[in-house]
Amino acid sequence: MGTVHNVMEDSVKDLLEKYWGDLPVSCHCETCKSDVYALSLNRLKPHYVRDQSGRMYAKASLMTTQARATILTAITESAKVVSAYPHH
Amino acid sequence: MGTVHNVMEDSVKDLLEKYWGDLPVSCHCETCKSDVYALSLNRLKPHYVRDQSGRMYAKASLMTTQARATILTAITESAKVVSAYPHH
Repeated sequence: MGTVHNVMEDSVKDLLEKYWGDLPVSCHCETCKSDVYALSLNRLKPHYVRDQSGRMYAKASLMTTQARATILTAITESAKVVSAYPHH
Repeated sequence: MGTVHNVMEDSVKDLLEKYWGDLPVSCHCETCKSDVYALSLNRLKPHYVRDQSGRMYAKASLMTTQARATILTAITESAKVVSAYPHH
């Protein structure tokens, strides 16, 4: 069976890298960053695709203003949780 | 930033491999199987974890009867969609 990929992972990673320095987190270590990444993905609807063409299409759908706002909200909420309960 | 993993991918793959032969699909090719896999994952709540210990814990939570039933329902629904609209 071929591999599948959740394009939401790319979108969350892009925005997390971009805004990580601005987020109200108590700790900026790599472990906390990975926890925010995992927690954010668990709050967002997955977008799995089977192949490259599907990936481009799905990625485009995640670049709308609304989609970016939804992702940023999930990241901010996750950052608060990880700040309150760090596991590093 | 460390890698994260959606443990739901393992659970869906296990059950899909186990029941693929019994599923009412019009085509059993690898492409259709990957499409059912991706479509199923898009219907299920993701369980991303950061590390190995988190993976074991999350995997255990996906082995309950209720969780397996939820996953099998997603697989069966996805199989109907892929059967009706194959992309191979």
